[in-house]
Amino acid sequence: MKIAIAQLNPTIGNLDLNIQQIIEAAEEAFTLGARLLLTPELSLCGYPPRDLLLNPSFIKNMAEKLSELALQLPDRLAVLIGTVETNPQAASKGEKPLFNSIALLDKGRVQQIFHKRLLPTYDVFDEDRYFEPGYETNYFSLDGIKIGVTICEDLWNDEKFWGKRIYEVNPIEDLVKLDVDLIVNLSASPYTVNKQKVREEMLKHTAIRATIPIVYVNQVGGNDDLIFDGNSFAFNHNGEEICRAKAFERDLVIVEYQKDRKDFLPGAIVALPEKEEEEIFSALVLGVRDYARKCGFTKVVLGLSGGIDSALVAAIASVAMGSKNVLGVLMPSPYSSTHSITDAMALVNNLEINSYKLPIESLMKGYEETLEPLFAGTEFGVAEENIQSRIRGNLLMAIANKFGYLLLSTGNKSEMAVGYCTLYGDMNGGLAVIADVPKTRVYSICNWLNRDREVIPSNIINKPPSAELKPDQKDRDSLPEYEILDDILDQIICEHRSPLQIIATGYEPDLVNKVMKLVARAEFKRRQAPPGIKITDRAFGTGWRMPIASRWLK
Amino acid sequence: MKIAIAQLNPTIGNLDLNIQQIIEAAEEAFTLGARLLLTPELSLCGYPPRDLLLNPSFIKNMAEKLSELALQLPDRLAVLIGTVETNPQAASKGEKPLFNSIALLDKGRVQQIFHKRLLPTYDVFDEDRYFEPGYETNYFSLDGIKIGVTICEDLWNDEKFWGKRIYEVNPIEDLVKLDVDLIVNLSASPYTVNKQKVREEMLKHTAIRATIPIVYVNQVGGNDDLIFDGNSFAFNHNGEEICRAKAFERDLVIVEYQKDRKDFLPGAIVALPEKEEEEIFSALVLGVRDYARKCGFTKVVLGLSGGIDSALVAAIASVAMGSKNVLGVLMPSPYSSTHSITDAMALVNNLEINSYKLPIESLMKGYEETLEPLFAGTEFGVAEENIQSRIRGNLLMAIANKFGYLLLSTGNKSEMAVGYCTLYGDMNGGLAVIADVPKTRVYSICNWLNRDREVIPSNIINKPPSAELKPDQKDRDSLPEYEILDDILDQIICEHRSPLQIIATGYEPDLVNKVMKLVARAEFKRRQAPPGIKITDRAFGTGWRMPIASRWLK
Repeated sequence: MKIAIAQLNPTIGNLDLNIQQIIEAAEEAFTLGARLLLTPELSLCGYPPRDLLLNPSFIKNMAEKLSELALQLPDRLAVLIGTVETNPQAASKGEKPLFNSIALLDKGRVQQIFHKRLLPTYDVFDEDRYFEPGYETNYFSLDGIKIGVTICEDLWNDEKFWGKRIYEVNPIEDLVKLDVDLIVNLSASPYTVNKQKVREEMLKHTAIRATIPIVYVNQVGGNDDLIFDGNSFAFNHNGEEICRAKAFERDLVIVEYQKDRKDFLPGAIVALPEKEEEEIFSALVLGVRDYARKCGFTKVVLGLSGGIDSALVAAIASVAMGSKNVLGVLMPSPYSSTHSITDAMALVNNLEINSYKLPIESLMKGYEETLEPLFAGTEFGVAEENIQSRIRGNLLMAIANKFGYLLLSTGNKSEMAVGYCTLYGDMNGGLAVIADVPKTRVYSICNWLNRDREVIPSNIINKPPSAELKPDQKDRDSLPEYEILDDILDQIICEHRSPLQIIATGYEPDLVNKVMKLVARAEFKRRQAPPGIKITDRAFGTGWRMPIASRWLK
Repeated sequence: MKIAIAQLNPTIGNLDLNIQQIIEAAEEAFTLGARLLLTPELSLCGYPPRDLLLNPSFIKNMAEKLSELALQLPDRLAVLIGTVETNPQAASKGEKPLFNSIALLDKGRVQQIFHKRLLPTYDVFDEDRYFEPGYETNYFSLDGIKIGVTICEDLWNDEKFWGKRIYEVNPIEDLVKLDVDLIVNLSASPYTVNKQKVREEMLKHTAIRATIPIVYVNQVGGNDDLIFDGNSFAFNHNGEEICRAKAFERDLVIVEYQKDRKDFLPGAIVALPEKEEEEIFSALVLGVRDYARKCGFTKVVLGLSGGIDSALVAAIASVAMGSKNVLGVLMPSPYSSTHSITDAMALVNNLEINSYKLPIESLMKGYEETLEPLFAGTEFGVAEENIQSRIRGNLLMAIANKFGYLLLSTGNKSEMAVGYCTLYGDMNGGLAVIADVPKTRVYSICNWLNRDREVIPSNIINKPPSAELKPDQKDRDSLPEYEILDDILDQIICEHRSPLQIIATGYEPDLVNKVMKLVARAEFKRRQAPPGIKITDRAFGTGWRMPIASRWLK
């Protein structure tokens, strides 16, 4: 039996468009001789639909569209569709109103419904907000083959693999007891660096432990801050990988199950990116492309400071949107170094993007004059530095508004963490492209980009980083070296370590306490930041929920 | 037995400060002859601590502080403290790592721990993210009186009162079966308009149904977007209210339980506000005061346009911070009407706040000249309107940065809903004071403020609303009348109604569809808005989780 994996890229809420994609995939799968088509978790509405699920008419809409879809699929092709189901017992039993479900469509109608059993409610996930966990073991039979159905998280609770459980039940164990022939897992699993390796190790472990072949289908595409990387794959019952679909692209691949061998036949395996930098770059490209496309933009604008952050974002944007659809705006001030212009122009030439120069000196004078009566006698300080950044932010938004561009903001994770950025200034934008990329990683990605030819001008990589908001300013005047800062930040943000634990890894107490305090104090800025594309285990954004008016550490 | 209710106002995460408040309350309670002191849910760390709970050292810190606190309390005073407890079985049983708990402190140590059983995970609540529900019925005995302990949501699952259950168990029923003498409920229940009436009706129903006296303790104070209104109260076993503490203020009150009558004695009842407008105004005052105080600000600044929104925010701020700590900045443009200045100055005089005038015409010219080469040949439009708003936003932030003021933003809920506001312009601020107050309610609060004397100049109330970003602009040119708009918005936002359902209430399909589309399209602005003080059942902010790059309705 041939099973087709449709690695789809839905737009959240756009049921008609998503159904069109499913029908196209079904027709292709049928042409290729498939008997069963697998689509990702919530393929009908896209993942995550978030509070759209609170609209009863949205739920009704989905149910209607699902029934219609059943009639539009090829005969003799069974299809698993991700959808939501109303929980009829919610009010009487005190349960959540919905299930996160998979519908088996066959012969023109919904034949069976399966409910997701393990509901992630941590980091960026809020499934307990909407869904009741399913309590039944999910399987169906097709042409005499008994197929176990799991949905995303259902697979992620093997205490032997993780060393602990995070849910009481393990749906895989239950399927093994029922002696299913193969297991499918329909996922919408967000990208983080190196996650695919973890997924494959886990699936290998599971396949071997259960002696059951498993196929894993993932959503692909960018949805606000989350990137879904695709990378769908399958393991045979010996724990050998027999198929892998593309990363960061729509794909449709076939795996063949042989009934007599009770296993998959070997198939085609797309290679994983060799370097983390390549993987991250691809994720960010997809994030920009999909955010722009799904919001209806074809062109993007960004400020080019001559620094490495905006250089990387420009490089990402030129791949995501096409060079001719990228406008880089240079906005020099009297504090800008000459190389800030020459470096930015070298980048513009390398990337073949459009550029424009708007000097801000006269506007700086305008604010100085306007505020003179109030500011007379005060010293140049953060207020004046921020004015410059906000003039630039205002000019960029004016261009974005006038010509319908999407403004991309260029701040990195290290800056966002310590608040080394200006709210309503350089933080402006519809999407914060590298907000989850630490500064040291910004460098390594730029170096990777330059592996064959100079994409990022070497002077941009080699000069000391500077905000250039006052004469001779350098980042290192107010921040530790980025290697040190990024290590401390990772311990704070991703590993939840205490100051004492971090000091024990070899840093000065004063430095650790200073960084801790900077992170806490910058919360008000991050709350107003644009969505930032998540690539690490813990990004600022939907998975980072901190109070502002609070004080834990002094 | 005298029971003291400590209606405390903790600062999130500031354990030392919160403990100081608890000790002061304990000493006062002891002086008044109390045998038992009740404090709100999570009184040790404040509610909601959000992702601070993900730091193991924060949890450890709380456990240590709790033990220390036990030694600092008066003898012969038992105290219930809200804290979190580590779940020792989390990893082995696949449970959440923490419990939301109440510790009974007596005789210098922790005597008992009770776990919250019903964990709200909807709207602004995320308790499933952190906590495992307790499964035991919680009670203790003190001087021969059997006292049932419930924590906030534990009380809110009476299917007779609500017509449905939202959790499987009802902790009150379990306590009734155990024949407890009285029930205490320790809460951190956020304010919404009229919620206190619902709480009291529910508690009355419960007291009568169970024939048990109940005392309800609520947190007070503003924590970012959430206001806790206090209003702690008690009902006797006949369903008569026998005590009510102050609204929107710290308070400590005593209720007396008579063992032989098995009931409370009548006590003092603070009257509720007569009008919703008074109640909302008090909530907003507390919200501004606490956000400023807990973030370390003593002064606030805001833009005064001469319109009703900024007038109301100025009035709130002058009560919250003291008139002399409020700076209103007038920033007229050539499109500003003359009355915008005279009306704003009349308000400044009425409120006795500070003011300053910064005309923006020369800065507008500066942007025009800077952008001329790019914008030549285009028509005046939204880009130019936004530039003005962003000049003002930049000036206000410059003043805030220079002098350490908290900037308050002044947009109302109707504007935030339809995107009639400028990102990085008038949306700028640390706190969006009236972001959850619909425009029609802004008017009714201003009229209430003027009940005895003119606080808000009548011309501000009577003139047609305008953004004054182009000549002769009026809100009604692009939006429906606010009575209509606010009703449609309420149906969309709070009641989750579909376009068809709203049309059925008597509106034109084109109008309803236009408003629906405006709400969806403004999501990117709201994502970057400052925290807005929640007063309705559904505010934009932590309880509104919508995708941006999405499309449901066309």
